[in-house]
Amino acid sequence: MIDLYTWGTPNGQKISIMLEECGLDYTAHPINIGKGEQFAPDFLKISPNNKIPAIVDQNGANGPVSVFESGAILIYLAEKTGKFLPKAPHQRANTLQWLMWQVGGYGPMTGQFYHFKNLTGKPDFSDYAFNRFKTEVQRLHTVLNKQLEGKDYITGEYSVADIALYAWVKKGYELVPSCTSDLPAPHLLQWLNRVGQRAAVGRGMSVPAV
Amino acid sequence: MIDLYTWGTPNGQKISIMLEECGLDYTAHPINIGKGEQFAPDFLKISPNNKIPAIVDQNGANGPVSVFESGAILIYLAEKTGKFLPKAPHQRANTLQWLMWQVGGYGPMTGQFYHFKNLTGKPDFSDYAFNRFKTEVQRLHTVLNKQLEGKDYITGEYSVADIALYAWVKKGYELVPSCTSDLPAPHLLQWLNRVGQRAAVGRGMSVPAV
Ligand SMILES: N[C@@H](CCC(=O)N[C@@H](CS)C(=O)NCC(=O)O)C(=O)O
Ligand SMILES: N[C@@H](CCC(=O)N[C@@H](CS)C(=O)NCC(=O)O)C(=O)O
Repeated sequence: MIDLYTWGTPNGQKISIMLEECGLDYTAHPINIGKGEQFAPDFLKISPNNKIPAIVDQNGANGPVSVFESGAILIYLAEKTGKFLPKAPHQRANTLQWLMWQVGGYGPMTGQFYHFKNLTGKPDFSDYAFNRFKTEVQRLHTVLNKQLEGKDYITGEYSVADIALYAWVKKGYELVPSCTSDLPAPHLLQWLNRVGQRAAVGRGMSVPAV
Repeated sequence: MIDLYTWGTPNGQKISIMLEECGLDYTAHPINIGKGEQFAPDFLKISPNNKIPAIVDQNGANGPVSVFESGAILIYLAEKTGKFLPKAPHQRANTLQWLMWQVGGYGPMTGQFYHFKNLTGKPDFSDYAFNRFKTEVQRLHTVLNKQLEGKDYITGEYSVADIALYAWVKKGYELVPSCTSDLPAPHLLQWLNRVGQRAAVGRGMSVPAV
């Protein structure tokens, strides 16, 4: 049994998608980040950076294992189950580089765009910051669209890279719809559609049920 | 032989530190990102996101392996050499969560702080954005300082987490010096000093020599 501490945001959804894809038994515990539940002392013990997601695997190799940071959780679950992360060095590096591209690039930049977009019309709104992050999200869409050309999944076969990016790109593409016409991304849109049709993805996207 | 495409920034330095720590044979190729060399078609073939660092391991398992994204490169090199990333699931997850904390949090947030700080006095400067990222870097210092309490290294033993964070925290702590008095971080400062004294770290920090 795995305890998943999560909220209905892309960083949380990628873990519930992974758990569903792996067929692992888990219980989702909602951490309402709008109400500050991520600062509760018990949660900070497993997630000292006060962010969802985090897991506690009650059946770890030598007793319970707790993990925070969604990228680390994906690797932990992939290695536990032997799924969605190839072992051969070449394919493995290819998968991990696109996972890291989500963790270090797509996620933080889209997160900042979302934040600055929400300041629209408020005194703190900055055209410069808004455009900076918008341009960056568009650039990232172009990079991913190019990578997906001629492929069903990011590295060819379905992996933690697709799982990490799906919920984020779904959100990011909604936030920067302008690129539909300005910067067409047909491969990216087909991929969103393809991944979104997976039953496990559908289930994972609606966790936690609150 | 490993070809390293890099520049003298924290994301590049963490790879040269790792290569030095592992005693691997490598050649550093400077990519001057100030001059736009990251957009050269040959470089984009190995680093489609137009960023340093990237490597090509000429002695990969089945021929050359190219990897971009510093976090993926660190894992690749750790798995190639069996160094600085424990295999036991509990310690491994602990190491990977702090590596991801650098890739997805410390790096991007400090990078944004640096960017907005450099706008000081310019028309695009935004107090709000400046303070947002400054507060976040300070918060991250507090989190890392707490983790280092009573430990020589981030997870106890020296690992890719320390290697990934050293060059970044050295830069971040210089950028937000106010926290020296406002938010003391004694464990973080001792750790910076401890890691900085390693000969391999000293050598890695001065790559590429240009
Ligand atoms: N790099 C982290 C980011 C996690 C993250 O940003 N979580 C957000 C929700 S999507 C959160 O918990 N925010 C609450 C807070 O920062 O106080 C990961 O990939 O797990
Ligand atoms: N998430 C990436 C970030 C790499 C990165 O930001 N590289 C910067 C230098 S530190 C760069 O090459 N910037 C040039 C550009 O974006 O055009 C990693 O960890 O490798």
